[in-house]
Amino acid sequence: MLEKLKEEVLAANLELPRLGLVDFTWGNVSGRDPATGAIVIKPSGVPYETMKAGDMVVADAEGRVVEGALRPSSDFPTHLVLYRHFPSIGGIVHTHSSWATVWAQACRGIPALGTTHADYFHGEIPCTPVLDEAQTTGNYEAETGLAIVGRFREGSIDPENMPAVLVANHGPFTWGADARAAVHNAAVLELVARMAMASLQIDPKLPSMPQHLLDRHFFRKHGPGAYYGQG
Amino acid sequence: MLEKLKEEVLAANLELPRLGLVDFTWGNVSGRDPATGAIVIKPSGVPYETMKAGDMVVADAEGRVVEGALRPSSDFPTHLVLYRHFPSIGGIVHTHSSWATVWAQACRGIPALGTTHADYFHGEIPCTPVLDEAQTTGNYEAETGLAIVGRFREGSIDPENMPAVLVANHGPFTWGADARAAVHNAAVLELVARMAMASLQIDPKLPSMPQHLLDRHFFRKHGPGAYYGQG
Amino acid sequence: MLEKLKEEVLAANLELPRLGLVDFTWGNVSGRDPATGAIVIKPSGVPYETMKAGDMVVADAEGRVVEGALRPSSDFPTHLVLYRHFPSIGGIVHTHSSWATVWAQACRGIPALGTTHADYFHGEIPCTPVLDEAQTTGNYEAETGLAIVGRFREGSIDPENMPAVLVANHGPFTWGADARAAVHNAAVLELVARMAMASLQIDPKLPSMPQHLLDRHFFRKHGPGAYYGQG
Amino acid sequence: MLEKLKEEVLAANLELPRLGLVDFTWGNVSGRDPATGAIVIKPSGVPYETMKAGDMVVADAEGRVVEGALRPSSDFPTHLVLYRHFPSIGGIVHTHSSWATVWAQACRGIPALGTTHADYFHGEIPCTPVLDEAQTTGNYEAETGLAIVGRFREGSIDPENMPAVLVANHGPFTWGADARAAVHNAAVLELVARMAMASLQIDPKLPSMPQHLLDRHFFRKHGPGAYYGQG
Repeated sequence: MLEKLKEEVLAANLELPRLGLVDFTWGNVSGRDPATGAIVIKPSGVPYETMKAGDMVVADAEGRVVEGALRPSSDFPTHLVLYRHFPSIGGIVHTHSSWATVWAQACRGIPALGTTHADYFHGEIPCTPVLDEAQTTGNYEAETGLAIVGRFREGSIDPENMPAVLVANHGPFTWGADARAAVHNAAVLELVARMAMASLQIDPKLPSMPQHLLDRHFFRKHGPGAYYGQG
Repeated sequence: MLEKLKEEVLAANLELPRLGLVDFTWGNVSGRDPATGAIVIKPSGVPYETMKAGDMVVADAEGRVVEGALRPSSDFPTHLVLYRHFPSIGGIVHTHSSWATVWAQACRGIPALGTTHADYFHGEIPCTPVLDEAQTTGNYEAETGLAIVGRFREGSIDPENMPAVLVANHGPFTWGADARAAVHNAAVLELVARMAMASLQIDPKLPSMPQHLLDRHFFRKHGPGAYYGQG
Repeated sequence: MLEKLKEEVLAANLELPRLGLVDFTWGNVSGRDPATGAIVIKPSGVPYETMKAGDMVVADAEGRVVEGALRPSSDFPTHLVLYRHFPSIGGIVHTHSSWATVWAQACRGIPALGTTHADYFHGEIPCTPVLDEAQTTGNYEAETGLAIVGRFREGSIDPENMPAVLVANHGPFTWGADARAAVHNAAVLELVARMAMASLQIDPKLPSMPQHLLDRHFFRKHGPGAYYGQG
Repeated sequence: MLEKLKEEVLAANLELPRLGLVDFTWGNVSGRDPATGAIVIKPSGVPYETMKAGDMVVADAEGRVVEGALRPSSDFPTHLVLYRHFPSIGGIVHTHSSWATVWAQACRGIPALGTTHADYFHGEIPCTPVLDEAQTTGNYEAETGLAIVGRFREGSIDPENMPAVLVANHGPFTWGADARAAVHNAAVLELVARMAMASLQIDPKLPSMPQHLLDRHFFRKHGPGAYYGQG
C-alpha cells in the first residue's frame, strides 16, 4: 500500500545525508497520505546506505502500524502529535543537523536577521521550553510533540508560516506540504542557523530585522501575492 | 540574439554553485552587452542543474524584456539600477553566500584587515543602510539598487576600486568588467568576509590595515602600475 | 596470527581519514582479542594510503610485540594501560580530530548540552589534568594512560558509560566493544565537541542539560531498557 | 636545467590546492638546488589547472632569472631573502590559507596550545611587525623577507625548529628541507591555526602548554633522540 508515498519518503530520507543534514542514522522523514491520513515513516536505526522503499513503515491516521517488518523511528510519536495538531502539513523531518542543534542546545530561538531567513520563516524560529522530569520520564516522544504544539499555541504561531521548531537540548523538526518540502525547509534552517550565529558573533546586540522587510520577503515567496519564481 | 553573452552568463551562473556561493536557486548573474547596453540575466527560481543558455532572459538597455520565455530574476530591477549608475561595469552577481551574508545581516561593512582583501577591494567593503518602510513596501528591488548607489555616492566610493557591496539584512552584490569577473569577485568577497570575522574574534579591537599596505597591494594588481601576473 | 582481527583493525584505521578524523598519519586504532587478550595496533607513522593488514603489529596481553616487522604506534603504551584497567573494552582510538582537540587544548571537559551527546556519553566528557614534568619526561605515553585511568577513578566514571576522554593539551581517546565501535565513538565525539563549543558561543553561561533528559537518552540506546533501533 | 627540481616544485605547487591551502592562484612554492643554490619557483598568476614543469622559473643563487619564459611569482624576492639568511632550508611556501591568514591579519603569533603544534613548531609561531610605510613603498617583497629574518633574529628563533612565520596583515610563509616538506608544514600550520583560535574561544585566557610537554613532543619527532615513525 501507498507505494508512491513510500518512494517519496525514502527519497526524502536519502536527501538528508546528501544535504549534510544527518550523520549516521540520526534523522527521519515521514509523509502523510492526503486521502487517508495514513503516515509513512523511516524505520529506526537503519543505515541510509542500504535503506529501501520496502523498509518504510506504514501507520494509519491513529498511528497504528499497519505495514512493515521493522520498528518505526523512535521519534514517530512526535511526528504523530504534529500531524494531529497541524492539519495542513504533509511531511515532517527530524535531524540533529549541526547548526540548528547548536541553537537547540542553547535553548534559544533563532532571531530573524536577514532575507534568507525571511524567505522561509516568518519571524523568530521558536524553541520549546526544556522538558521537565515528568515529560521526559513519561511518554517522552509524544510529550516532545506536545511541547512543540504548546509553544506554537502559546506564541500564536501559524505552522504554515513557520515550518520549523527547535526542541530545547535536542534539535530541530521541520515540516511542509510534503516530505520533500519538509526536507528543503530542514536544509534552509541549517543555513539560517549558521549565519544567525555568526552575525551575532560580529555584533552580540544585533536587533532582529525590521518587520517590514521580514513581511516583504516572506510574502514575496508565499501566499496569494507571491511573485518569486515562474508563478 | 546575444547568443555568446547568453553562454557567458549561463557559465557564470553555473560557477556559483561550483564555487559554493549559492544554495538552491539563491543567486543570479547578469551581463551587459558593451555594444548595445542590452542585459542578459538568469530567470527567476530555475534550478541550476537544468538551466540552459536559452533560458536566459534578454532585456534592452532600459530593462524591457525583449527575449525569453521565463521571468527574469526577481532581483533584476536592482541589477538595472546598478548598470545605469555604474557605467563601467559589464557583469553583476547577487548571492546569499554565507560569510558575506553574515556581515550583511550584522549591517556592518567588512574592514580591510589584510592583503587578500587589499588585492581586490580598495578599502572597507561598504554596507548600505537598512531600507526603511517606504523603500521596502514600494518598488523594493529598484530601491535596493538606489540604496547601493546612494551609499557609494555618499562615501565617495569608486565602483571600479570597490566591486562589492553588502545590502543590510540581505546579502552581497558584486560586479566587474564582465559576468565572469563579477563571479570571481563574489568568490573572493566570501573568503575575505570569513577571514575578517575570524580575525576580529581573535582581537575584537583590531584596527584596519595601514593605508600604505592597502594601496601597495591594490595597485600591485590594478591600474597602470600593476606588476602582478604575466602583464 | 589473529588475521581477522588485523583486518578489523586495518579497516577501523582506514575509517579515520574517511570520516575526517585524522590528517596525515595522526591517529591510531587498536583492537583486543577477547580470547587471549592479545592486541593488534597500527604501526607508527605509516601513511593510510598504503597501509596493509600485514603491517599491523601484534602484541601479547602484556604488551610484548610478538609479530610484525614495523614499530607499533608511539601511543601504544597508552593503549596498553587502558586495556589493562578497562577490562570490558575491545578497541581503542586516538586521534587529533579538530574539535575534540580544541577542547583538549583548552584543558576542559565537554559539558553535556544535548541529546546527541546524551545518546553516547553519560555526562560531561572528562579531561585529564595537565601532565606534570615528571610524567612528561618519564615514561610519557604510559603516564598518559595512567592519567586517564586516574581521572576516571577520581571522578567515579564508568568507562562503559563514558567511552571517551580528552588528554589535556593533547587530544582525545575513545574506546568501545571493538575497534569499529571505538571509531564510531570518535566520530560522534567530534560532532559533539563542535556543537558544544558553538552552543557556548551563543550563551557562554549555558548550563548542562537536565539529568533526567541525559538519563532518558542514554538509556534509550544503552543497557537493558534500550528501545532505539531494531532491538 | 634542474628538470628534477622543476618536477618537484611543480608537484609541491599542485599539492596546495589539493590540500585546500590556496584559492585561485594565491600561493607559491619554490625549491633550492643543494648543489648550486639555484632556485626554482612558480610563475606569477598562472592557474594551477594548466601549470606545467616547463612553466617553472629558474634563478641562480643571486636571484637572477636564468631560464623560463614567464615572470616568477611576485613574492620571489621574499623567498630569495629567506634562502640567503636561512641556509639550511631547501623549500619555501607562501599561501593565504584561511586560518593562518586569520592570525596574520590579527597581527598575532599562534601560541603553542597542544601537542599537534608541538610536534612541528617548537614554541609560538611568530608574527612579524606591521611593515611601515618605507618598507611597503620601497622594495616591498624583499622588505617582507627582511622583516621575517629580523623577527627571527630578535626573538633568537631557530628556523629549523620553527619552520613557519606569519607576516602581519598578510599571511604565512613556511619552509623545510625541500619543497615537499615546506608544503607539509604549511598544511600543519593551517590545522594548528584553526584549532588554536577555537581553543581560545573556549577560554580567552588560556595559557600556553607547559614547556616540558612542548619539548617532549617536538624532540620525539625531531633531532637525534626522535623515536616517532619507523626510524
